[in-house]
Amino acid sequence: MDVTFDGQRLRAGREAREQFYDSRGYGRPRGGELELAPVEAAHLLFRGDIDSVRDQRESQNRLGFESLLASTAVSEVSFFVYKDLRDRGFYLSPARGSGDDTDRPSAQQPTGDADSEGAPGEFVVYPRGQGPWDDTVAYRVRAVSEREDVPARELRTLVERADSEGATAVLAVVDEESEVTYLELAAQGIEGATDHTLPSVQGTLLSDRVLVADPPAVLYERAFYGQQLDPEGQVQLSLVEAAYLADTGTLEVDESQEGDPVDRLRDRGRAVEGARFDRRLQVYSALRKAGVVPKTGFKFGADFRTYAEVTSVEELGHSELLVRVLPAEHVFAPRDLALDVRLAHGVRKRMVFALAGEGLSWLVAERLTP
Amino acid sequence: MDVTFDGQRLRAGREAREQFYDSRGYGRPRGGELELAPVEAAHLLFRGDIDSVRDQRESQNRLGFESLLASTAVSEVSFFVYKDLRDRGFYLSPARGSGDDTDRPSAQQPTGDADSEGAPGEFVVYPRGQGPWDDTVAYRVRAVSEREDVPARELRTLVERADSEGATAVLAVVDEESEVTYLELAAQGIEGATDHTLPSVQGTLLSDRVLVADPPAVLYERAFYGQQLDPEGQVQLSLVEAAYLADTGTLEVDESQEGDPVDRLRDRGRAVEGARFDRRLQVYSALRKAGVVPKTGFKFGADFRTYAEVTSVEELGHSELLVRVLPAEHVFAPRDLALDVRLAHGVRKRMVFALAGEGLSWLVAERLTP
Repeated sequence: MDVTFDGQRLRAGREAREQFYDSRGYGRPRGGELELAPVEAAHLLFRGDIDSVRDQRESQNRLGFESLLASTAVSEVSFFVYKDLRDRGFYLSPARGSGDDTDRPSAQQPTGDADSEGAPGEFVVYPRGQGPWDDTVAYRVRAVSEREDVPARELRTLVERADSEGATAVLAVVDEESEVTYLELAAQGIEGATDHTLPSVQGTLLSDRVLVADPPAVLYERAFYGQQLDPEGQVQLSLVEAAYLADTGTLEVDESQEGDPVDRLRDRGRAVEGARFDRRLQVYSALRKAGVVPKTGFKFGADFRTYAEVTSVEELGHSELLVRVLPAEHVFAPRDLALDVRLAHGVRKRMVFALAGEGLSWLVAERLTP
Repeated sequence: MDVTFDGQRLRAGREAREQFYDSRGYGRPRGGELELAPVEAAHLLFRGDIDSVRDQRESQNRLGFESLLASTAVSEVSFFVYKDLRDRGFYLSPARGSGDDTDRPSAQQPTGDADSEGAPGEFVVYPRGQGPWDDTVAYRVRAVSEREDVPARELRTLVERADSEGATAVLAVVDEESEVTYLELAAQGIEGATDHTLPSVQGTLLSDRVLVADPPAVLYERAFYGQQLDPEGQVQLSLVEAAYLADTGTLEVDESQEGDPVDRLRDRGRAVEGARFDRRLQVYSALRKAGVVPKTGFKFGADFRTYAEVTSVEELGHSELLVRVLPAEHVFAPRDLALDVRLAHGVRKRMVFALAGEGLSWLVAERLTP
């Protein structure tokens, strides 16, 4: 079988179309012939379904699996993901022209043709038993190396594209042993059902928190603000809790001192954490306003753990989410993403990244076995 | 009982010395009297053992627990750790003059007197049943807030000081609910017993790894380099494995191309990871030279997991360590430290931070219940 390679894509005749596309979902028909992406040809070479391809550029040299993989046309990171999904029984195609292939951080990605190749390392995966001749997409998968950082912005774009085609967005991370870990990503609103009314409260600002010497019972026991210093006694509020309560008019702090109490609390928060404090306050406020109770997620390495419905601390259920607060321009290291998701899974919670900038967006990440 | 406060330390008479120092380890004798650190006085106030202290600076005002804690003399972070260790049955004292209290990042720490107060937030904890009148120190504890970043350098200094007095170094992190998490820190050499001899190997450089088309069996099966692409077939090496093997003269890569192969591999590694690749290679090489086999720790969110003794991949045991590679000047966020330690504990491994700079130092961190 004659398969030719022009440096970007591969072409084969009618026989290949019947054998590879019609029955197994490789490539795309072009007239009566078949066009293959380099990653698809690499897989056919790896399986031995084709022996070699003819390189039209270099005096008709023949390329085998190893030499195609060593060329810049296909990254082995994409190949491992392609192969793994094929091994799991899926048909898949390189994604069509997403147009984001110019601003990717890695210099080693194939440049490809946006129309035929799509974003480098991005695939559309069809439901099992379906293929490129159907209209349904099960997963939109982006393949990255364990070593390659991924901007949060690109993950949000991936989710948007997946949502628009009714698919699940997936980050497929190829580790240094070429094993693939799949992380499902979703944009999701947060909603809870916690509701209460608070009387006004007086507090004293300490260095790293606020002490409420004479708290109304509802503050801690029903609304779950702060922590009791001793049973039925004083309540200490974290700075982020205090800043939110001052901002909503519930908390008054050291009225003897000058300046707006919210500013004083913010300044104290920023003194240690800088802009991270503002982001945490932004996320804390959004969660509280959504009826969710955020408490520290320190024991889980997160900013917050959250309770969707608190009616009393005595009858507190299991917290559902772990929230990590990040700036909107954050760049994820796949290792850290995997760590967060793994830990959250281990404690039966969902991992949520709160991307705080001018607005706020939520990115939920979970392990996935396709 | 008359206890006076000059803004930095507190003094009380002979009666206090008998009642608080001799029988319960508070303070330090000065002549026949007792000198108390603010955190010790705060604890006595909290317990009701003293009612108030007399502030010598401000027209003999009397201070109670809340007003002492709200002053700059004592941080409530130190107080919560002091109280928690007391509740656990330990006697402890603020550390004497460690001299590092001038370059700490937080502006809210009491400045204190280096001779009497030691590093702010640093305590020496005596073995249970012992106290400041004995010579033994069980733990040297540094108290920090969940929100406060801690430079790796300061943790190394803490470990050195603890080692010099035969004590265990402990970072005590106070979370926003004022709960204390204890992390034991140790500087520790890494040693393994893996031993093998490798013949020279030929590889092809792909974009993100090296393919060895015809590997000697020992490469993967005995020395556990790389991963098999298919059983008994080609082996792919990660860039860090390949750079180490090229550096030690075992691996030859694409002899047709120009330039030193180690440089080419390093350049490829740096293209994606920058200086992080050099640090990972430095740590990988040190581990291999110590007889330990490092493999990717991706699934655990770490750089490497390690095997102390590999004789064959078929009989591979449990990996013992998770290694995270960091620059020597790294600043830890307590949340991330807690996350790493918690995950390592959950998979029955030890968490090791490799601090890579001009030299290399190891910091082992584990959960501790004092």
